[in-house]
Amino acid sequence: MAKLFGYLFIIASFFSFALCLGEEESVLRQPNEKAPLRFSGDSTFKITLFADLHYGEAAWLDWGPEQDRNSSRVLSAVLDSEIPDFVIYLGDVITANNLPVPNASMYWDQAISPTRNRGIPWATLFGNHDDAQFEWPPEWFSASGIPRVSCPPADFSFSGKECYFGGTPRMELMKMEIEKNKLSYSASGPKELWPSVSNYILSVSSAKDGASPVVFLYFLDSGGGSYPEVISRAQVDWFYHRSKAINPDESVPEVIFWHIPSTAYEKIAPRPRSAIRRPCVGSLNEESVAPQEAEWGIIDILTKRSSVKAVFVGHNHGLDWCCPYEKLWLCFARHSGYGGYGTWPRGARIIEMTEHPFSLKSWIRMEDNTVHSEVTLSS
Amino acid sequence: MAKLFGYLFIIASFFSFALCLGEEESVLRQPNEKAPLRFSGDSTFKITLFADLHYGEAAWLDWGPEQDRNSSRVLSAVLDSEIPDFVIYLGDVITANNLPVPNASMYWDQAISPTRNRGIPWATLFGNHDDAQFEWPPEWFSASGIPRVSCPPADFSFSGKECYFGGTPRMELMKMEIEKNKLSYSASGPKELWPSVSNYILSVSSAKDGASPVVFLYFLDSGGGSYPEVISRAQVDWFYHRSKAINPDESVPEVIFWHIPSTAYEKIAPRPRSAIRRPCVGSLNEESVAPQEAEWGIIDILTKRSSVKAVFVGHNHGLDWCCPYEKLWLCFARHSGYGGYGTWPRGARIIEMTEHPFSLKSWIRMEDNTVHSEVTLSS
Repeated sequence: MAKLFGYLFIIASFFSFALCLGEEESVLRQPNEKAPLRFSGDSTFKITLFADLHYGEAAWLDWGPEQDRNSSRVLSAVLDSEIPDFVIYLGDVITANNLPVPNASMYWDQAISPTRNRGIPWATLFGNHDDAQFEWPPEWFSASGIPRVSCPPADFSFSGKECYFGGTPRMELMKMEIEKNKLSYSASGPKELWPSVSNYILSVSSAKDGASPVVFLYFLDSGGGSYPEVISRAQVDWFYHRSKAINPDESVPEVIFWHIPSTAYEKIAPRPRSAIRRPCVGSLNEESVAPQEAEWGIIDILTKRSSVKAVFVGHNHGLDWCCPYEKLWLCFARHSGYGGYGTWPRGARIIEMTEHPFSLKSWIRMEDNTVHSEVTLSS
Repeated sequence: MAKLFGYLFIIASFFSFALCLGEEESVLRQPNEKAPLRFSGDSTFKITLFADLHYGEAAWLDWGPEQDRNSSRVLSAVLDSEIPDFVIYLGDVITANNLPVPNASMYWDQAISPTRNRGIPWATLFGNHDDAQFEWPPEWFSASGIPRVSCPPADFSFSGKECYFGGTPRMELMKMEIEKNKLSYSASGPKELWPSVSNYILSVSSAKDGASPVVFLYFLDSGGGSYPEVISRAQVDWFYHRSKAINPDESVPEVIFWHIPSTAYEKIAPRPRSAIRRPCVGSLNEESVAPQEAEWGIIDILTKRSSVKAVFVGHNHGLDWCCPYEKLWLCFARHSGYGGYGTWPRGARIIEMTEHPFSLKSWIRMEDNTVHSEVTLSS
């Protein structure tokens, strides 16, 4: 009998331990032990999305650094007009396949600097250009030769370590951003999702109660550059289990961010170069959607959760619309950088949320301070 | 007057110093201070060319390691039939874009091992697959996930250095080969030719007089993988000046080796899948020439030197012919490895030279011990 009680005790202890672990799992801590993000006193939370900045492009020409200065001007103008609570860098922050330097973080830091200088917290995620391999311009092998760049052959030790151009991997970029910046809310996600790195969740709490989440922001790494342009099945499973754990009754609204549009975007896209008609809202429809290579279930999972309100992506510089897809919205940001293809005027998508009741609005703020394409995504 | 003599003395000293430097330049030392290569007692020197071995391909499947075993069988069979004095690995030794390991030198070493085990000296040069970036198979991101390979996510430290697949650069591959192998005659070329690495010259001396060169072997890196598929203008200049310095009167025959055919090969190629007719000699004509991206002058320089007898390349697995081009011969080797595309029977091109008078013959030795396509390239 004593033995039976002993066994029951062990089993009970095991279950309470398991339950305790389960509960720990369901609590969302802000990554890197940062102060919680909070709605402001007037119960709003405003986010600026900077997409496709492409810092460091053609850095060996006069043209390149000039574009970076132009991009910084856009960022400053938008930040000073909107004064957001938070900034999200939506991938293709740099053009790594174009960087004639051994470490890409210098250009990464340039992109972050207008936000940091204004004391605004931010988060970043990766696009397909951020840790792409350096692509040698074929003309560097003609008579003109390799131009004078940060890492010329004369400077590298030929007997041991080579000087490489570009190629700073996602993990290292993220590590350098986080370690150097107190205002960064970025994080490297669970290691089992590797080579995908920028997978993490941020909670934005009520102005009045820091322990009460009002909205969850999910960041996913849609690949590209050093590996295929996909959201993997492992990421889908991670999203499924994490969202179930932290928001089991789907009572807290959820907003999703990644870089490369899903194939679902193709299904609802207005015909390229035609007018954008309701229910879609936007101003730029100049190209076809360039989607991920495969769809392994993320959109299915998202549409099944009533709490998911919208997905925001970049990647297509010639698109800036939002269109409904089943019960949620699929939105493009706006090409914010002077790097990258396309000469459409630069701007940034703004997201504004209110707390009581929860609402989600968005508009586009242009470099010249004009505003357009306002749309209500949840009310 | 004394002053004038003083000036003349300084000028004369300067000229003799410059002449002395010039002379030093013109002497060819074997790279890495190796024992000089010599024609054998019967005044012949026989080389086996192993092309496109592609070790390490699809290493996470049963298929991959099986192909590597097959390739080693080919190498052993050819070496035992021919018993050459020297072996040249003509690029695409490994398939680096397919290596799920952090360091490619393990597969490089497998490729070298049949030659080393027989005590035969060798030299290597780089092909477009040897330091290509690892290409993630898209299916690794589906439900099946990343297979158990040498460097699974579970083994890497997520907080610091990432575990990378493939991607060992040319410099490092070459360094590891040279440091570990006394029989290797490979070398990293002058640093001003970087990112091109396998650029060097070997001298083969007379059986009777070790100081008297009978033939010079030139190795060039034709790029590809981590940078464009070209022989750069800098390499052309290097070849021009070095060949002028060590063989100013063009009295010593010269034979040239690189991986990717020049555009000149296209000009003389028999129509794909047609019979190979004289003056061309060969057995395999199953595809179009896949040439370098640009031609920046190497062929012009070679055709202007009467001492250049032939160029040998790999790359096209479905071609094994030699054709004359102006005063020299352009030859393909023979696909020796079971890795890489194509199922044509495997073999190796053999080169045999004699000393007095100089002659250059070639034939192809197959895995099944048969011989075909004998051709005289210089007599």
